[in-house]
Amino acid sequence: MTKNLLIVHGGGPTAVINASLYGAICAARQSPQVGQVYGALGGTAGVLAERFVDFTAMGEEKLALLLHSPATAIGTSRTALSPEDYAEMIQIFQRHGIGYVLFNGGNGSMDTCGKLYEAAKAAGISVVGIPKTIDNDIAVTDHCPGFGSAARYLAQTVAEIAQDVRAMPIHVCIIESMGRNAGWITGAAALAKTDDPAVGPHLIYLPEVAFDEEAFLTNVKQLYDQYGSAVVVASEGLKNLAGQPVAGLIFESGRSQYFGDVGAYLAELVIRRLGIKARSEKPGLAGRCSIAHQSPVDRDEAVLAGREACLAAVEGKTGIMIGFERISTQPYRIKPVCIPIQEVMLAERGIPAEFIAPDGKGVTPAFVDWCRPLIGGDLQEFVWFT
Amino acid sequence: MTKNLLIVHGGGPTAVINASLYGAICAARQSPQVGQVYGALGGTAGVLAERFVDFTAMGEEKLALLLHSPATAIGTSRTALSPEDYAEMIQIFQRHGIGYVLFNGGNGSMDTCGKLYEAAKAAGISVVGIPKTIDNDIAVTDHCPGFGSAARYLAQTVAEIAQDVRAMPIHVCIIESMGRNAGWITGAAALAKTDDPAVGPHLIYLPEVAFDEEAFLTNVKQLYDQYGSAVVVASEGLKNLAGQPVAGLIFESGRSQYFGDVGAYLAELVIRRLGIKARSEKPGLAGRCSIAHQSPVDRDEAVLAGREACLAAVEGKTGIMIGFERISTQPYRIKPVCIPIQEVMLAERGIPAEFIAPDGKGVTPAFVDWCRPLIGGDLQEFVWFT
Repeated sequence: MTKNLLIVHGGGPTAVINASLYGAICAARQSPQVGQVYGALGGTAGVLAERFVDFTAMGEEKLALLLHSPATAIGTSRTALSPEDYAEMIQIFQRHGIGYVLFNGGNGSMDTCGKLYEAAKAAGISVVGIPKTIDNDIAVTDHCPGFGSAARYLAQTVAEIAQDVRAMPIHVCIIESMGRNAGWITGAAALAKTDDPAVGPHLIYLPEVAFDEEAFLTNVKQLYDQYGSAVVVASEGLKNLAGQPVAGLIFESGRSQYFGDVGAYLAELVIRRLGIKARSEKPGLAGRCSIAHQSPVDRDEAVLAGREACLAAVEGKTGIMIGFERISTQPYRIKPVCIPIQEVMLAERGIPAEFIAPDGKGVTPAFVDWCRPLIGGDLQEFVWFT
Repeated sequence: MTKNLLIVHGGGPTAVINASLYGAICAARQSPQVGQVYGALGGTAGVLAERFVDFTAMGEEKLALLLHSPATAIGTSRTALSPEDYAEMIQIFQRHGIGYVLFNGGNGSMDTCGKLYEAAKAAGISVVGIPKTIDNDIAVTDHCPGFGSAARYLAQTVAEIAQDVRAMPIHVCIIESMGRNAGWITGAAALAKTDDPAVGPHLIYLPEVAFDEEAFLTNVKQLYDQYGSAVVVASEGLKNLAGQPVAGLIFESGRSQYFGDVGAYLAELVIRRLGIKARSEKPGLAGRCSIAHQSPVDRDEAVLAGREACLAAVEGKTGIMIGFERISTQPYRIKPVCIPIQEVMLAERGIPAEFIAPDGKGVTPAFVDWCRPLIGGDLQEFVWFT
């Protein structure tokens, strides 16, 4: 007897979460154990509202668009769930004959996934997690789908802006990168470095390292004196030596606190303290939804993670998340593995010490070697004359 | 007898200024009238320092990289020139046997180009301008190389961010666009619109229209109540009803004034006044140097402009700028024309009234029709389910 399969998205989108959706749908449609293939519209909120889209007989051509569609095609949510919500979801699954649930998300979503697994045990419903986060901060797995594309976006964008600044060296340029608590994306800016020391990025600041404003100003001044400009990449989550967000609180509203933008703050600091022209760029959300910068490796691995999650579920596995184990870096090879969900629930993984440069400004060559295959091919080759 | 040819870049880079350089070099190398083919390293400052790169015998493969290299491969400058500087440049040209000078730049550079033409007349040196500006604010020509790629970048990026916001409607998102005085780039955001009214961009604010904060807040509130989110595109140069930059002066240093970022200002306004979550994105320089978003039409036209400038110069034309006349929009056809340099010197062209939406929020369908062929092909097709 077949059971139906449901795919649910949680948390912020990535450039390849829809590729995992594609992989899961294709595998499910080919699995004799699976009846209908559903997607929840709007994450767990969509489950609770019983808003499903049916992928069982959808045309191949339309489905294939998922590989190159940003955001999440079936929506997502970030709503906190009560114990009653979990119980209700189980009833909804049973009402719809759903025996397989694939939960695609980051840290917070894997926590939900683990709780859902516990709640679904008695009903014999398999719950399997698919990792997804641009921040790459899920534990145990070598890396997460979504990261490679965000890394490619930042590396390519920094390389291009560094050329712009090199061509007309009139200011210091601060590029704010995503990844509030973990510096994986920020570190990927190092892939933009060239053999020409005049071309940035010159300074890379990870959120794992306390930010020293005075040292920053000294470094920027030195670079400006030497090259007439400087390119700085700074994580949106930088904290100062006192452990406070560098940009400071600008507004409080209820339980929400709003901090200033790190890039804008640092640019203003350079202007005020050094009297040097400065500007800041904050691609922000653009950095997680650019299809032009999708890493083909990341996309393929996202499809793989979706497929493996489906296959694990129909084999009766539950309470696990699909992860990647790196077999080798040169040549790059990984294999999908099943990780007990308890090991990843809410565990946040920052860049390990061996990947952080000894002087605290940027990453080590080992990080660059680790990261390079994930962005899926070399950055665009540029020519310039000096 | 042959004369040497020199190419000079002025002002801010675009994604295709190097494509014009490529077009000019190729044409010059094929012209029997041209001896050596030089590029000035660092704009007019490079001319005055006699810093030239010799393209005469450079390998084809290296040259072809120019088509896909951002910024300007030979640098650029923004330095103001004195009458003595012009006289000195003429001497330098003569010393290096330079009889053809191609000047690639925007409004300011065309002013320089015009003055150089006057100064070079007696010496029999041809001076021809190649238009270049992401802002598209050079007079007379239908459009400028550089604009199509900046328009494509903004339209594609807004389309992607709008999907991100649609997928997780928890906030108002303000995207700050380049183009401080002219709304051409900002208007291109309209190309990102879909048939789904829930998907942004919902509001587009051009710098040509005085910005009414209260009306903006009313509109945002309405959209938020309806869709749970809103996507707003705002020019970096927005001015309020009193004619002042909306973000206000944050710092003065000597003759330089620094204004706050429009996007960040509007996001904060939404948070404070409406108590709605808001964030801002400011791709900034990324929007003029992204090679992934280079418009193929823009690139081809940039090559054409470079080539035509060279051909005009060797034919003895001088004191002109190459421009484009639009023959038809469907099918899209243009032809290169020679425009007297006096007609474009420092003349700034904003969006004409017939391209501005009657309600002041965004552009007309006529603008969209005019703009679409310039971005060089449809935006990426996306799929989503509601």
